[in-house]
Amino acid sequence: MARQESRAERLRPHIPEKVHDLDHESHYSDTSRIKSLSDGVFSIAMTLLAFTMIADFNRPALTPAEFWADFHIPLLVYAMSFILLGTYWVAHAIAFHYIIRSDRPLMVSTVLYLLFVSLVPFSTHYLGSFPFDRLAILLYCVNLILCGLALQQMLLYATKDPLMLNPVFDRRIFRGTRVAIAVGPVLFAVALVVALVNPVAGFVICVAVPLLTFFPNPFWGRLYRRFYLGRQQA
Amino acid sequence: MARQESRAERLRPHIPEKVHDLDHESHYSDTSRIKSLSDGVFSIAMTLLAFTMIADFNRPALTPAEFWADFHIPLLVYAMSFILLGTYWVAHAIAFHYIIRSDRPLMVSTVLYLLFVSLVPFSTHYLGSFPFDRLAILLYCVNLILCGLALQQMLLYATKDPLMLNPVFDRRIFRGTRVAIAVGPVLFAVALVVALVNPVAGFVICVAVPLLTFFPNPFWGRLYRRFYLGRQQA
Amino acid sequence: MARQESRAERLRPHIPEKVHDLDHESHYSDTSRIKSLSDGVFSIAMTLLAFTMIADFNRPALTPAEFWADFHIPLLVYAMSFILLGTYWVAHAIAFHYIIRSDRPLMVSTVLYLLFVSLVPFSTHYLGSFPFDRLAILLYCVNLILCGLALQQMLLYATKDPLMLNPVFDRRIFRGTRVAIAVGPVLFAVALVVALVNPVAGFVICVAVPLLTFFPNPFWGRLYRRFYLGRQQA
Amino acid sequence: MARQESRAERLRPHIPEKVHDLDHESHYSDTSRIKSLSDGVFSIAMTLLAFTMIADFNRPALTPAEFWADFHIPLLVYAMSFILLGTYWVAHAIAFHYIIRSDRPLMVSTVLYLLFVSLVPFSTHYLGSFPFDRLAILLYCVNLILCGLALQQMLLYATKDPLMLNPVFDRRIFRGTRVAIAVGPVLFAVALVVALVNPVAGFVICVAVPLLTFFPNPFWGRLYRRFYLGRQQA
Repeated sequence: MARQESRAERLRPHIPEKVHDLDHESHYSDTSRIKSLSDGVFSIAMTLLAFTMIADFNRPALTPAEFWADFHIPLLVYAMSFILLGTYWVAHAIAFHYIIRSDRPLMVSTVLYLLFVSLVPFSTHYLGSFPFDRLAILLYCVNLILCGLALQQMLLYATKDPLMLNPVFDRRIFRGTRVAIAVGPVLFAVALVVALVNPVAGFVICVAVPLLTFFPNPFWGRLYRRFYLGRQQA
Repeated sequence: MARQESRAERLRPHIPEKVHDLDHESHYSDTSRIKSLSDGVFSIAMTLLAFTMIADFNRPALTPAEFWADFHIPLLVYAMSFILLGTYWVAHAIAFHYIIRSDRPLMVSTVLYLLFVSLVPFSTHYLGSFPFDRLAILLYCVNLILCGLALQQMLLYATKDPLMLNPVFDRRIFRGTRVAIAVGPVLFAVALVVALVNPVAGFVICVAVPLLTFFPNPFWGRLYRRFYLGRQQA
Repeated sequence: MARQESRAERLRPHIPEKVHDLDHESHYSDTSRIKSLSDGVFSIAMTLLAFTMIADFNRPALTPAEFWADFHIPLLVYAMSFILLGTYWVAHAIAFHYIIRSDRPLMVSTVLYLLFVSLVPFSTHYLGSFPFDRLAILLYCVNLILCGLALQQMLLYATKDPLMLNPVFDRRIFRGTRVAIAVGPVLFAVALVVALVNPVAGFVICVAVPLLTFFPNPFWGRLYRRFYLGRQQA
Repeated sequence: MARQESRAERLRPHIPEKVHDLDHESHYSDTSRIKSLSDGVFSIAMTLLAFTMIADFNRPALTPAEFWADFHIPLLVYAMSFILLGTYWVAHAIAFHYIIRSDRPLMVSTVLYLLFVSLVPFSTHYLGSFPFDRLAILLYCVNLILCGLALQQMLLYATKDPLMLNPVFDRRIFRGTRVAIAVGPVLFAVALVVALVNPVAGFVICVAVPLLTFFPNPFWGRLYRRFYLGRQQA
């Protein structure tokens, strides 16, 4: 067959070979379902983060000092995880500003991504209960590294198919975005290694990650420019 | 009355006979509410799967070996159920790419479908607690078979009414989709029967189902083609 | 001031009198936020119904007979509440097919409606735990009557303002819809009174309500026609 | 460089300097993801409010008097928090009727806003358990003041950039809206100070806030007009 097959036809099992006469684009869904499910999972995971603290909180009225002693670690871990999930949500929202069509493999990637996202309340609760425990930090870091890798895989898949992309998509911006998304997982990998030697230091690195990746900071600007404009300026 | 009545008029009780002068199509809603409720229920059910594990997890810091001993079964069952719900979500999303209008009976079908979907965290938690228990496997399999049947019923209903369908809808593709959706329930029926004899073997089949139905694999391609192209090639 | 004021200007405090030069319609929001919040609350309330059963279910492997003895009432109450919430969701979805614009009071009505909807998992859990208890039936019935009244109030408000309505809106259909929505609360009022004398009979009526109001049945068709066509045929 | 840089280019790190040739507006997302995540978090937080009461409610059948004694405070606090979250949701919905585009900092603001919103079930549960406890009232008030401040910050940011705003946006109306949103936090600050002296009086003020800020009342109308028309009438 001489005609060039689009990736959609080659990869998607639910479109058999003889349907060539159908409009190809019509077999891409829009991304509304992916966005909707993702926003749902993110909003629930985020809200459950705080909810898990309620279970630990059935003692009668505490003094402020006791409250602080009991809750400064869980509240810190809660805020940290909330902001990390927020960072992943922002990255997802920016990515799906550029990805405008979906197919089955992209939905499958989404489900895998959300699988790791939905584990965050679990690993957060564990870390909040045992903050300086090696295993707790390990679980937490592995969980967030897996979120990052799943997002990278999803972006890599989607950006290979021009039919899936917004016409305003610029491959150079996306390169910067992908580098930015990689910063979190790399720092968590560092935290993981450090935690094997010194759990407290590992925990401190974990807490620093959302501060570095969520709020705008001058370091980001420089990082983006370096990676982004490297080839262009040469 | 000589004019041909559309199915909408015959079946839907909330449109009395004398409203013929209204535009018929205007009485179909779009499917946005169905999609939105479904995505909501799926995202919550998926996120609760992981959340139910937290309740089991209040022991002080464990060694990695103890953690593994305690959690490899719940984590496996969790991932398995998440991916199964993901499969049903993908099937639902693909189906509602082709179903573009809804009426009251389709909403009723949706509620019944979601009734079974929302039971999955319950049956998953039970299976995760007692993985090799006959009753747990039975509940789990029956739950997921009912999800599959409810989805089949919904598709069967919607695809009978051309006014509900996307013009790009191709009945041949849908036949393949419906066969694909049937694979999961059939395998769970097998797991159920096997579990009566040997619960461990039944559990193993359950774990295999999401691997077979979620990830793209060559078997799928062949299955689709066989069912889909059978009549056409004859 | 001679010009006729629209209800929006008279009732909504956040539009002061001097903004007449702005386009009035632009101050109505669309209903997307109302639909989105409602679908969110419904989907969570529905999924939590099943989730509350998990807490009651921490015993080691049961025999099927024991499982049935322990769980036939909670599962029945669960399915019943799920279908009742489904009925209210369907009614809400049909209503908002006709209501296409919103203002602040409609949002306030929505929040009050959802206040009662979100209590349903609570009263369901109580009824599931103590099915033949007078107080449990009373709470459950009052909860669902309040849901119905809040929905009626919302419909009454929205259908008074033609600017809020879909042009295909037919006041006659809406009258039928409002009668249909009233059937549930009336039956729950009956159940409530009966339960004061005989709790078991009250419980049985409660269980019958979703069967009567959710699934299409010939009684509905006749009811709609009688109320709907009464004035027209006279 | 002589050309005037838009704020988007100056502030957003993910748009490097050399992308000037891209359409600027195309780098604003629409606000659908923000609305969707916010509606998700609000609906879950609202539904969890009632759910937290279930955990406290495992006693066998109570008399109505006992039920009232046990539950009138939690139910009151529940309804109060639900309506407060409803007020914040309405304010958010009205704000995003006028904000029609988003960028990364607005998403970051949204996540911070939702961080405080998702803590409300936690502080509500604490207040419901210990209603006249100083620390409980303090936590609750601080939580809701932070929600208000985060919303103010978000509005302040968004309304500075004309490209983000609906053309029907009227700065005068927004000033009124921002004053209205400030009423809640100011009253909670008063409640907080009063609670240090007399916890019961502080609790009573907290309960009064949703009554004043949610339901339409003549006081609102006057307040809006005074702040809103002050400069115009001068």
